[in-house]
Amino acid sequence: MRMVDIIHAKRSGLELTDDQIQFFVDGVVSGDIPDYQTSALLMAIYFQGMTDQEQSSLTMKMMESGDHLDLSSIPGVKVDKHSTGGVGDKVSIPLAAVVAALGIPVPMISGRGLGHTGGTLDKLEAIPGYQVEISEQDFINQVTKDKCAIIGATGNIAPADKKIYALRDVTDTVDSIPLIAGSIMSKKIASGTDALIIDVKTGAGAFMKTLDDSRNLAKALVGIGKGVGMQCMAMITDMNQPLGNAVGNALEIKESIELLKNNGPHDLVELTTTIGGYMAVMGNVATTPEDGKQMCQRVIENGDALASFKKMVADQHGDATVVDNPDGVLPQAKYQIELPAKVSGVVSKIVADEIGIASMLLGGGRQKADDKLDYSVGIYLHHKIGDSISAGESLLTIYSNREKIDDIKDLLYDNIEISDSATAPTLIYETIE
Amino acid sequence: MRMVDIIHAKRSGLELTDDQIQFFVDGVVSGDIPDYQTSALLMAIYFQGMTDQEQSSLTMKMMESGDHLDLSSIPGVKVDKHSTGGVGDKVSIPLAAVVAALGIPVPMISGRGLGHTGGTLDKLEAIPGYQVEISEQDFINQVTKDKCAIIGATGNIAPADKKIYALRDVTDTVDSIPLIAGSIMSKKIASGTDALIIDVKTGAGAFMKTLDDSRNLAKALVGIGKGVGMQCMAMITDMNQPLGNAVGNALEIKESIELLKNNGPHDLVELTTTIGGYMAVMGNVATTPEDGKQMCQRVIENGDALASFKKMVADQHGDATVVDNPDGVLPQAKYQIELPAKVSGVVSKIVADEIGIASMLLGGGRQKADDKLDYSVGIYLHHKIGDSISAGESLLTIYSNREKIDDIKDLLYDNIEISDSATAPTLIYETIE
Repeated sequence: MRMVDIIHAKRSGLELTDDQIQFFVDGVVSGDIPDYQTSALLMAIYFQGMTDQEQSSLTMKMMESGDHLDLSSIPGVKVDKHSTGGVGDKVSIPLAAVVAALGIPVPMISGRGLGHTGGTLDKLEAIPGYQVEISEQDFINQVTKDKCAIIGATGNIAPADKKIYALRDVTDTVDSIPLIAGSIMSKKIASGTDALIIDVKTGAGAFMKTLDDSRNLAKALVGIGKGVGMQCMAMITDMNQPLGNAVGNALEIKESIELLKNNGPHDLVELTTTIGGYMAVMGNVATTPEDGKQMCQRVIENGDALASFKKMVADQHGDATVVDNPDGVLPQAKYQIELPAKVSGVVSKIVADEIGIASMLLGGGRQKADDKLDYSVGIYLHHKIGDSISAGESLLTIYSNREKIDDIKDLLYDNIEISDSATAPTLIYETIE
Repeated sequence: MRMVDIIHAKRSGLELTDDQIQFFVDGVVSGDIPDYQTSALLMAIYFQGMTDQEQSSLTMKMMESGDHLDLSSIPGVKVDKHSTGGVGDKVSIPLAAVVAALGIPVPMISGRGLGHTGGTLDKLEAIPGYQVEISEQDFINQVTKDKCAIIGATGNIAPADKKIYALRDVTDTVDSIPLIAGSIMSKKIASGTDALIIDVKTGAGAFMKTLDDSRNLAKALVGIGKGVGMQCMAMITDMNQPLGNAVGNALEIKESIELLKNNGPHDLVELTTTIGGYMAVMGNVATTPEDGKQMCQRVIENGDALASFKKMVADQHGDATVVDNPDGVLPQAKYQIELPAKVSGVVSKIVADEIGIASMLLGGGRQKADDKLDYSVGIYLHHKIGDSISAGESLLTIYSNREKIDDIKDLLYDNIEISDSATAPTLIYETIE
């Protein structure tokens, strides 16, 4: 078999065979296939797409290229949640605690941020001492005992995906549905969860800019999951404006704790409890998503979810007093700079990806994979789309460690619009089961 | 400027700017752009194509990436011919001699074969002593004195194309019209010719399988040539069956000499004199292509063309007695094996590329760029499409240095058909001026 013939088949619109996909994945991992041939195939896949059969074959071969976590010793239905990534999307952090408080094991394996999107692991590392790299056995023990853990990939999970993802990033082949689906699901299947809910973000701040593309990606993800016998569903949710009010690592931890103290922003609470409701059904503790949602609301109100979070932080060697005193424990930026509205009206646009880029430029995100993060910086929105504001009133606070931030202010003004009228956008578009 | 943004622009169907193309070509030559990004861009160009503006910009930047031959000291209009490559296509060899015999300078820079296609330089090297690598000054002197020379690229001609071509070969991005056009024309413009005729092959044995694709390539080539003030035209000719009867390096030299002795096969003579007729007009020695064609026929009949060929071989240190005694001078294969027709009828199909592959498998062609050639082997067709044949009569002779060639016989039988009736295919489809 020759890689050039595999490229030719895909370029010509043919369906790749299982053997061809196996040859490709093996060659990527062994290094026998040079990067220039891999990137040519990735671009051909971008243009020609993949059939369901090819997509699931690619996923399985990438999954089989590395280790497979065995979580069978943890009692109960293990339920995980994944987001395709957005700005201000800290849902996983309070959600893990909420669902754990319902008695459902949540073995969550998360990622880091790149570009305008944040990463759950980066946010958690804003808590002094928090360890995201723990052994497989410690992970299993913690989920068994305290029901939740959020860690980075242990050992050698889907090494083929790791190599392919690095190439996609520099060859502009990131936003290909079969490649995204294969990347997410190979890791999720290898992580050994029984059930998975995927939050597919749609809009300006998401990889998928249109509802149609988001729906296609959601269907691909759910199809692959069900194909391997996993309970799997997806929800398409808005990422035109940031989620919640906080963007930036420490700021988002603080907002997550606020939510767990029953004081979270409306959209973040709504999305967290809705997803939690579905997870409650998957985990066999609720009969309907609506019941599950109310159960989530209750463990937020009664403090059980906050207690779960505190235990998880302590288990993972983080300073658990962050729960009682966020500002005292989390790193603080030197400057807090208000951005006043130039006119009165209703906020009609807050371009999510550009807000994410502003936070990245302050030092809160990575332009390159090896950039160091400044956990303290970020942006706190005082108004969201649909809110009224008067000229001179603060739109948002910029948390910065440099005093001169005219570049950031310009970028923010350019990407926030105030009009005569506007209504808050739909938060949850649809679910795919 | 970042290469990933250039890939993104092309992938999205935008027109690349001059500056972007310059950045790409510079980065390829300097090695600053890694191969995996180049191959991603090439695949995106394959799918999205290029505008006339992009195509001519790419050609010029690739041309400017290396040396430029100055042939202005050679008196007269310098006329060159290029073929997009086929099986049995030895036209350049007798043609250079024919046109030189009309007094027109022919400074021909040719290439080597790869895969099923042969290369003019390889064929000439079957003549003991023939040197294709000569200095620029010797090349100019020879064309000035004897009117023709056929050599390999001297010095550093279009190094960007050299690198890009090597990647295209292994990433299945060879048959992209803008990339083919850029590759051919960057080298031809750098070689300093005044006029150029391009033989665009069409059919099973050609890169372009359909007349439409061939016409588009021909138009692209002529457009680029005229854009830089070159006299330029193209002819679309058949490559469904091999050209002439001989396929294989020494066999094709022998057939070229036969033609110059006025004893060539009909199709090869027709194509050589037709192209020569147009070159005679370009070189200002004939007023119409038909007049030019008759002049070519005359220098074949009166021996002037053969004398030109003999001089060129001697000039380039080859054994010029090959003209008088081809079998005695050219390398000879150990075995000559006949392939008898299994049924009686009319030859209706001789699949050109598979005949080329059979010759390659005998050792006459390259599977990889660094394969060594066996000049003596090949295939001599006794019948072409439209010829009657009786069962048991020899279809062709296989020249081989191994005795057991059942694989070759099977391949040839699979790719030659005999039916009740068939007519010879059109040889010349159209000209593009």
